Amino acid sequence: MTLALAGGTQDFPLTLTHVLGRARTVHHRAEVVSLLDAEGNRKRAPMAAVAERADRLAAGLRSLGVEPGDRVGTFAWNSQEHLEAYYAVPCSGAVLHTLNPRLSAEQVAYTINHARDRVILVDDSLVGEMEKVLPHLGDTVERFVVIGDGDAGALPGDPLRYEDLLAAQEPGFGWPELDERSAAALCYTSGTTGNPKGVLYSHRALCLHTLVMAGHDAYRMSERDRILAVVPMFHAMGWNLGYLAGAIGADLIMPGRYVQSEHLARLIGEERVTATCGVPTIWMDLLRYAGADLSSLELAICGGTQVPPGLMRDFEERHGVKVVQGWGMTETLPGAALAHDPPAAGEEERWHRREHAGRLSPFYEVRIVGADDEVVPNDGETPGEVEIRGPTVIGEYFENPEASAAAMHDGWLRTGDVGTLDSEGWLRITDRAKDVIKSGGEWISSVDLESALMAHPTVVEAAVIALPDERWSERPLACVVAAGEVSPEELREFIAPRVAKWWLPADFAYLEEIPKTSVGKFDKKILREMLATDRLPGRRRVG
Amino acid sequence: MTLALAGGTQDFPLTLTHVLGRARTVHHRAEVVSLLDAEGNRKRAPMAAVAERADRLAAGLRSLGVEPGDRVGTFAWNSQEHLEAYYAVPCSGAVLHTLNPRLSAEQVAYTINHARDRVILVDDSLVGEMEKVLPHLGDTVERFVVIGDGDAGALPGDPLRYEDLLAAQEPGFGWPELDERSAAALCYTSGTTGNPKGVLYSHRALCLHTLVMAGHDAYRMSERDRILAVVPMFHAMGWNLGYLAGAIGADLIMPGRYVQSEHLARLIGEERVTATCGVPTIWMDLLRYAGADLSSLELAICGGTQVPPGLMRDFEERHGVKVVQGWGMTETLPGAALAHDPPAAGEEERWHRREHAGRLSPFYEVRIVGADDEVVPNDGETPGEVEIRGPTVIGEYFENPEASAAAMHDGWLRTGDVGTLDSEGWLRITDRAKDVIKSGGEWISSVDLESALMAHPTVVEAAVIALPDERWSERPLACVVAAGEVSPEELREFIAPRVAKWWLPADFAYLEEIPKTSVGKFDKKILREMLATDRLPGRRRVG
Repeated sequence: MTLALAGGTQDFPLTLTHVLGRARTVHHRAEVVSLLDAEGNRKRAPMAAVAERADRLAAGLRSLGVEPGDRVGTFAWNSQEHLEAYYAVPCSGAVLHTLNPRLSAEQVAYTINHARDRVILVDDSLVGEMEKVLPHLGDTVERFVVIGDGDAGALPGDPLRYEDLLAAQEPGFGWPELDERSAAALCYTSGTTGNPKGVLYSHRALCLHTLVMAGHDAYRMSERDRILAVVPMFHAMGWNLGYLAGAIGADLIMPGRYVQSEHLARLIGEERVTATCGVPTIWMDLLRYAGADLSSLELAICGGTQVPPGLMRDFEERHGVKVVQGWGMTETLPGAALAHDPPAAGEEERWHRREHAGRLSPFYEVRIVGADDEVVPNDGETPGEVEIRGPTVIGEYFENPEASAAAMHDGWLRTGDVGTLDSEGWLRITDRAKDVIKSGGEWISSVDLESALMAHPTVVEAAVIALPDERWSERPLACVVAAGEVSPEELREFIAPRVAKWWLPADFAYLEEIPKTSVGKFDKKILREMLATDRLPGRRRVG
Repeated sequence: MTLALAGGTQDFPLTLTHVLGRARTVHHRAEVVSLLDAEGNRKRAPMAAVAERADRLAAGLRSLGVEPGDRVGTFAWNSQEHLEAYYAVPCSGAVLHTLNPRLSAEQVAYTINHARDRVILVDDSLVGEMEKVLPHLGDTVERFVVIGDGDAGALPGDPLRYEDLLAAQEPGFGWPELDERSAAALCYTSGTTGNPKGVLYSHRALCLHTLVMAGHDAYRMSERDRILAVVPMFHAMGWNLGYLAGAIGADLIMPGRYVQSEHLARLIGEERVTATCGVPTIWMDLLRYAGADLSSLELAICGGTQVPPGLMRDFEERHGVKVVQGWGMTETLPGAALAHDPPAAGEEERWHRREHAGRLSPFYEVRIVGADDEVVPNDGETPGEVEIRGPTVIGEYFENPEASAAAMHDGWLRTGDVGTLDSEGWLRITDRAKDVIKSGGEWISSVDLESALMAHPTVVEAAVIALPDERWSERPLACVVAAGEVSPEELREFIAPRVAKWWLPADFAYLEEIPKTSVGKFDKKILREMLATDRLPGRRRVG
């Protein structure tokens, strides 16, 4: 609709430049702590210093010829320097491309070439990984800048030291006025098929997400918090913690590459961490780690994949830590839905809701689309593909018309997740669209079957994939890693009360380990290949 | 700067239509309670019903010929129906003009004529007030719609009943897609001089403000809250509570015209109110009201004028209620700054901070401009006029180029408040620019003198104005309302430890009452007129 009458509000853009200014002034005392080594040595800086160094970094990048719109890569763990780049690059008008060290060297190179990165900041600990990337690079990268003073001899050209670059600049920087729709950051999704796809975030999207996440019913964090940023800054903008901290003044504890339980436990205990974010694997490991002092910790936002209810219960009952499940994607930014306890909920409702992916955050809209491409009711029961829209959701992939066309559906983004939505905005993810098992015209959730199987005390891991079936089209095949002897019959009997009768798998495979993707999710693509080439071990069939 | 590279985010507008959709779905169970009469009778509706009735109201207004961009007035207290209009009017593309019944009839008429309202919704209890407005109206108003079934015979034409209008519509409404910069609402400031000035809010501004207010360090309210909306919905969009409730799912308790302590106390006690917003006068009265059960109340956001520290202490110590001062204007929306206790602050710092107007909220930027129009340092000491900018701050008044030109200063809004800003974004308001006393080239804060005087147990009210002085240009004149005998000498001695020596007033006036504006603030314009015409009673001079 055309603008009938324009409001008299100032034309003030939603840019990260405001957030940087706020970090520099209002929250200049907020602390950024970076773990430097396995011995636990740390460095500390107030936000004022981060902002002052961001000025110098921006000036340094400008001196290297980086212009607005240019891409600057970071190949780095979570650290103060990475945070400086989070502010300096976008606020100077350039685009921060967070490279993912967990991808293969070819994939990393693909993303650099596709993004046409001109400068790349590299942690010295990752120089060896970058060396493997070099042979696959095109000619876009003009300069490497090395964070830290480790050996950088493997990098070509004349790699600069990050500290030298900063020291060579005058204090201050003339931050440009930016359009809020200009690009701020670029993050590639690590899909299990095809090349990674680029997600280009605007300043507006990152600012709005910062405001949404600052809400009480979202991340529930504030100036009083000391946040342990476990989720890597190269995953979906590190779940926005870098910008959130600048906006609300929380302290940030950066673990670098030391995300093993012993280091995290020590940081939580010694730094009196109150809140943290990460994938379930991290918390499962931490729970098993003896001697962790979690007494300061109140909240752990957990996402990236389904959070096991047992994990949430254990944290709450043993440590008084609320593990709150969240849902989002690189394409939507992280907190599209969060599963906080509903107010005044009884124990049963509370735990029922905890098993949901979450409740929709403000300015996210979701619809569920069934197999026939029709929107199904939000009854909490009818499953379909989750489609999403909103001012922080992508409308296209970066320079990838083919992937964009496949992803968009009448202005909504197809998430590739299958689930249900109820009348109060509670979203339940039951499967990935490509993993759902289509049996007799109905859908069987591989995830629900996996959860049911993994609840068995002997089962360490379980992944369920589709087995082609003449009569039913597909039937579930359960791939199980067991810590001891457990028969298919026992497993069927165990899960029978938890799933529909026609869901019960007749086919099993017993593996030593479920193959994983670079981000630690079950790699069902490999399982399917093993099935197709008859290499799935320990196959057994019931009846 | 031009757009170097546009982010790939969806072009999803920030409109109240999303908030209405969220109220209808995610938060459909949130409750809206409206007090109907002095006996305490109430009606209750879930948000789902409010949304359904907003559909009908939008359809009804369309049937009356209201088109996008047209203005629809409301002359109403806080009620469910007013909330319905808050959603129906802007989301249909029209502009909600909240008329202020506390203005004079001439002023109300001026705002209707200036806004060119086509339809006006009138509470039946305000029909008598509207009757006084009628003789001053131009020919823009085509129809009155009366809320309630009280006598409406005084209104011209064929006044419709609100319920009849809704009942005549089919369920549902085809909400248009709106540009986020289109006008949503219009609110006139009740200045003490000249005609009221129109502040036209865009959908974008109201949505952003809703997100900012939902933050933990802002209104600190969430789905668990039951909010008593004491601040009238015709003042600065009722401090945004109507939209906040839709976005976060809080319950709203609407007191209608019954804002006296007995009614508020009863509502708080019986409805288990947890949070509320209003001006200090309301809370001072409530504190004095015997028998109030405030046990459910946790938070009272308080603003509109300086909040007396004693009020905050009494509420906290006697009732466990945090009274949090906030600062904002019609022109900025309410929560530009909020004075929550800093985390880990000791008692002294805590109370020191409570005396500030607040700490800047995200996406508000403030600078302090001295007498020579130069920006002064943010040192918390150097006073000047407070200038503000941000995406929720106006850049112009509605169709008023003259007032707009006077208000804007290089893209910043002159607030007319004098104060200081410190390096952490804490704002202290020391005076109104027009009330500050310019003595010997320095500024004396009338507000600080008033606070010091009102701390005396015998002083009920104190207002300080400038007395022309040959030598010093101006000297302070203290207008005092005393509950007993207290001499100028005693008052000077009492305040001497609290203010600079050269601030001490030599001139006093003893009044029975300080004249007030329509919103209950000291009306210094009248005091100045009394001074100029030698009608100030009880004048006494020291030394």
